[in-house]
Amino acid sequence: MTSAAYDNDNVFAKILRGELPSHKLYEDDETLALMDIMPRGDGHCLVIPKKPSRNILDVDADSLAAVMRTVQKLARAAKSAFDADGVTIQQFNELAGGQVVFHLHVHIIPRFEGVALRPHTGEMADQTVLAEQAEKIRSQL
Amino acid sequence: MTSAAYDNDNVFAKILRGELPSHKLYEDDETLALMDIMPRGDGHCLVIPKKPSRNILDVDADSLAAVMRTVQKLARAAKSAFDADGVTIQQFNELAGGQVVFHLHVHIIPRFEGVALRPHTGEMADQTVLAEQAEKIRSQL
Repeated sequence: MTSAAYDNDNVFAKILRGELPSHKLYEDDETLALMDIMPRGDGHCLVIPKKPSRNILDVDADSLAAVMRTVQKLARAAKSAFDADGVTIQQFNELAGGQVVFHLHVHIIPRFEGVALRPHTGEMADQTVLAEQAEKIRSQL
Repeated sequence: MTSAAYDNDNVFAKILRGELPSHKLYEDDETLALMDIMPRGDGHCLVIPKKPSRNILDVDADSLAAVMRTVQKLARAAKSAFDADGVTIQQFNELAGGQVVFHLHVHIIPRFEGVALRPHTGEMADQTVLAEQAEKIRSQL
């Protein structure tokens, strides 16, 4: 459904192969959940399928279903971990759709009354803070 | 997982019972796809489960999987119908998470290079335009 082919050198492919570090939250046969390193809010995490796919346009149905099962788990855990008032889920497809890394990923962002999403600055979060937030989420899984 | 109970009088419940009109795009045993009447872009459509649930925090796994199968169908069809460059998927949970109607729904918004999402003004789109856009999407399903 998409013109471009899957690129094996995207950062999520490298994380899945263990070539790049990540703050892992949850893993099963089909999916991995990890912290977003450029969070738009506290506890911002991601779910990716292990099987390669660019985005929702080309992912196979089983992979997508598995991703969403993990998204629900993480949405509940992250909301609970941060005592959040809500959760925003986002999933971007192709550059015009907001996608930056071309391996399917779903954003899960705990939300708080009166607190807007932080802008996407491209700046990395403090690794110690991310590690602490990851521990909080894992404790709710 | 949520404190509040499902409200049978939300607009999607009324649409599902046939008490309110909608621009239907697709329907199966478990899901319904329809045009968003306050679109943030051309071809902005929604997928809802038929079974009552407030949002991703309380939906049952089968309903969520069915919704995502339909979301993928609609994302492909809407992108193709409008020759869009990308697709943005959003799903809001609780007021702080951006949710306005408390029946689970997933937003599918075709995206075009250089075109930002329109603000959520609360103003209804022209029904003739929505009907034309719905026809374009249905033709790609």
